[in-house]
Amino acid sequence: MKILVINAGSSSLKYQLIETDTNEVLAKGLCERIGIDGKLNHKTAKGELKGADVPMKNHADAIKAVIESITSPEYGCISSLSEIDAVGHRVVHGSETFSGSVRITDAVMKSLDECSELAPLHNPPNIVGINACKEVMGESIPQVGVFDTAFHQTMPKKAYLYGLPYEYYEKYKVRKFGFHGTSHRYVSARAAAMLGKDPSELKIITCHLGNGSSIAAVDGGVSVDTTMGFTPLEGLVMGTRSGSMDPAIVTFLMEKEGLDTAGVNNVLNKKSGVLGVSGVSSDFRDLEAAFAEGNERAGLAIEMFAYQVKKYIGSFAAAMGGVDAVVFTAGVGENSASMRAKCVEGLEFMGIKIDPEKNNTRGKEADISTDDARVRTLVIPTNEELMIALDTKEIIGK
Amino acid sequence: MKILVINAGSSSLKYQLIETDTNEVLAKGLCERIGIDGKLNHKTAKGELKGADVPMKNHADAIKAVIESITSPEYGCISSLSEIDAVGHRVVHGSETFSGSVRITDAVMKSLDECSELAPLHNPPNIVGINACKEVMGESIPQVGVFDTAFHQTMPKKAYLYGLPYEYYEKYKVRKFGFHGTSHRYVSARAAAMLGKDPSELKIITCHLGNGSSIAAVDGGVSVDTTMGFTPLEGLVMGTRSGSMDPAIVTFLMEKEGLDTAGVNNVLNKKSGVLGVSGVSSDFRDLEAAFAEGNERAGLAIEMFAYQVKKYIGSFAAAMGGVDAVVFTAGVGENSASMRAKCVEGLEFMGIKIDPEKNNTRGKEADISTDDARVRTLVIPTNEELMIALDTKEIIGK
Repeated sequence: MKILVINAGSSSLKYQLIETDTNEVLAKGLCERIGIDGKLNHKTAKGELKGADVPMKNHADAIKAVIESITSPEYGCISSLSEIDAVGHRVVHGSETFSGSVRITDAVMKSLDECSELAPLHNPPNIVGINACKEVMGESIPQVGVFDTAFHQTMPKKAYLYGLPYEYYEKYKVRKFGFHGTSHRYVSARAAAMLGKDPSELKIITCHLGNGSSIAAVDGGVSVDTTMGFTPLEGLVMGTRSGSMDPAIVTFLMEKEGLDTAGVNNVLNKKSGVLGVSGVSSDFRDLEAAFAEGNERAGLAIEMFAYQVKKYIGSFAAAMGGVDAVVFTAGVGENSASMRAKCVEGLEFMGIKIDPEKNNTRGKEADISTDDARVRTLVIPTNEELMIALDTKEIIGK
Repeated sequence: MKILVINAGSSSLKYQLIETDTNEVLAKGLCERIGIDGKLNHKTAKGELKGADVPMKNHADAIKAVIESITSPEYGCISSLSEIDAVGHRVVHGSETFSGSVRITDAVMKSLDECSELAPLHNPPNIVGINACKEVMGESIPQVGVFDTAFHQTMPKKAYLYGLPYEYYEKYKVRKFGFHGTSHRYVSARAAAMLGKDPSELKIITCHLGNGSSIAAVDGGVSVDTTMGFTPLEGLVMGTRSGSMDPAIVTFLMEKEGLDTAGVNNVLNKKSGVLGVSGVSSDFRDLEAAFAEGNERAGLAIEMFAYQVKKYIGSFAAAMGGVDAVVFTAGVGENSASMRAKCVEGLEFMGIKIDPEKNNTRGKEADISTDDARVRTLVIPTNEELMIALDTKEIIGK
C-alpha cells in the first residue's frame, strides 16, 4: 500500500511517500516559503530537486507540486495519483478527544477545529494541509489524522493534572497532554522488538532528544507520564525553550522587563533553552564545538541538559516502579555518543550501564549497554513518518 | 547557654528559649495579631498563657511581651533578660550572599535589605524582628541570622540555573535558591547520627512534607539539589501552592481569566495546590477524612502529592548516583504513615522498602525500613529552632 505522509506547518509542508508492504520510502521532500514564493526539495531513487522555484501561493499549490513531483517521469516514483492509497497527516494536538489515529470525516474536522484553541500555532496549518489534500486529490482518497498527543492519553490523572484549581481543568482543559507521542510510540515498540519481548512485559523510558526534547515513561506499552505538558514548553531545557522552571519567574520577568504575556512567551519559547544559557546556539553540535574551544557557558548548557535527562530517567523509573530499557532517539539522542554517556553517568545503581565501545555509534539501532547491565540502553532512530503510514494503513483497512 | 530563637512574620512572631547545654526548650510561644490588637500564647514548665490580650502595636511590643513572659515569676523560666546569651533569628532569604549563619552587624543588615527584593513578603518582617530585638534588648546581646536558603548554596550551577537567557541570572539573580534549608540540614545531620555514619559518607534524600513542602538531595552532608526554586512556589504540589507546572500556563490563565501578575500569583500561591485540586482543604488530615467519606478529588489530591514525592525521590537518587537514606519530616512526613507508605510504594527496585509495623509511628525518630532494605527510610521530626539555637551558640562562641 502506498501512503502519502504529510506534515504541514504554517509556511512549509514535509512529505514522504511510503510503501507500507516494504516500509520503503519512495519519495520524500519539503515545500518551503508557501504563501511567499515557493521552494521545493524533492528526492526519489530516480532524481532530486534542490530548492527549485515552484510558485506556491497556498498549501493546495504545495500539494499540487508534491503530486507533480512524485508522478514526474523524470524524478517521480509513481505514474499517477490513483496509485496513492491514502494520506496520513501529522496533527499536533488531539486534546482529550483523540486517543488514537482516526480517519478524517466532517465530524473529525469539527473536533480538530476545537482542538486548535490548545495549539493555536500548530493545529490550524495541519487543518489547512488536510483541506488542501481534499481539494487537490479529491474526497475519494481516504485521509487519516495521527496526533502528537494521542499516545499520552493513557496517562493516569495523578500524572496529567496540575496543582491548580480544578475548574481550570474543567473549563479550559488545563492539564498535561504531552507531545512527540508518535515518536515515543514508535521507539518504544521498536525497543520491545529489539529485546524480543512483548511491550506488555516492559517498562521503558524513551528519551526523544532533539531541538525539542521530551521523555516518556512507557509501562506495558502505554505512556504513563511524559515531560512535556499543557504545551511543548514544559520539561527539559531545549534548543530555545526554557523547559520547566519556577512558575513565579514568569510574572517576575514580566514585571522586571516590562513584558506582556506575548512578550514573555516569546522569551521562554524562542530566546531561552541552551541558546539562552550558552549565548552561543540552540544546536548541540555548536555547543560542543564552542565548549571544546573553552566557552564555559556552552559547557554549562550541555551539563544542564544531561543532568535534567538523568533526573527524569530516575523520576520515571520511580513512577513505574522500575525500568527495563532506556531508549535514546531524535537528533541528539541518535547521534551524540558523548551526550548519551553524560545522561546515564552515575546510574549504575539503577542497573543502567553503557559500554563506551558500543556507545560509539550513530543513527542506527543499537544496544549500547554492557553485557552485565540489568537495564538495556538502546539507540533507536525515530521514524514518525513510518508510524503515520502504518497507522493510516491500519485505519483504512478497518 | 540560653538562646532566644525568633521567627518573625508580618503580624506574628514565634519564639523559643533554648538551653543549648541540654537542648531543652525552656519556653515557647507565639505573638499574633501584631499591629492589630495583640494575642500572646506562651508556655513554660511553670505555666501557660493561651490567647492572652497583650497590646502589640508593633514587633518591639511583641518582643517586650516575650521578655516579660519568660521573666515572669508566675509563668516564666528565667529571672532577668541578662540570662539570655544571644538571639537567633530565622531569616528566609540570604540570596547568594549568605551560605551559612552569620552574626548580625550593620553590614549584614544592609545585605539583608538587598535580599528583600527576592523575598518581598518574608525578609522585611525578619528584619523588623531583628531591629525590634536590638531596640528592646540593647546592642550588647549578640544576634545571629540563620537563613532558609543558606544550606542550598552548595548546589552546583547545573542544578540551580534555569534554562533562561543568562542575563536574567546576572541582572536579577533568577536561579534556584531552595528553602527549608535549616530543616533539611537538621534532619540530614540527624539521619547520619541515627545511622552511626559520618555525613560525608551518605547520600540522603530529605522530604520536608508539610503545608509547604520541599525535598532535598544531600550528598556528603551538603545540599546538591532541591525542589523549591527561585521562590517557594516551585516543586511539589503543596497545601495552597501549585508547585511546578508548564510555565506557559501562567500567561494562558492571565489571558483566559483576565488576571494581572499579582492576580495570577495569588491564584498560584493561595488557591492552588491540594486545596485547588480537591476543593476541600489544604490540610492533608482533612483530605484523608474527605476521601474516606468518598470525595474522589480529595483522593486525587493525595495521590498527586504522593506520586510527585515518589518521582522526586527517583530524580534525586539519579542526581546523586544512588541513595543511602530517605528521611520524612515536617507535619505530614512525621505524622502520616499512610502518606509515607504511598510515597515509597513501588520503590523496592531502588532498595527502598518499609515495614508497615515500623511505619506505624508518628512524631518521633524511627527507622521504618525492613531489615533487608538496602536504603534506610527514616522518620525524623524536624527542629529548626534547635538548629538556629545551635548555630547561634557556635557563631557567638567564635
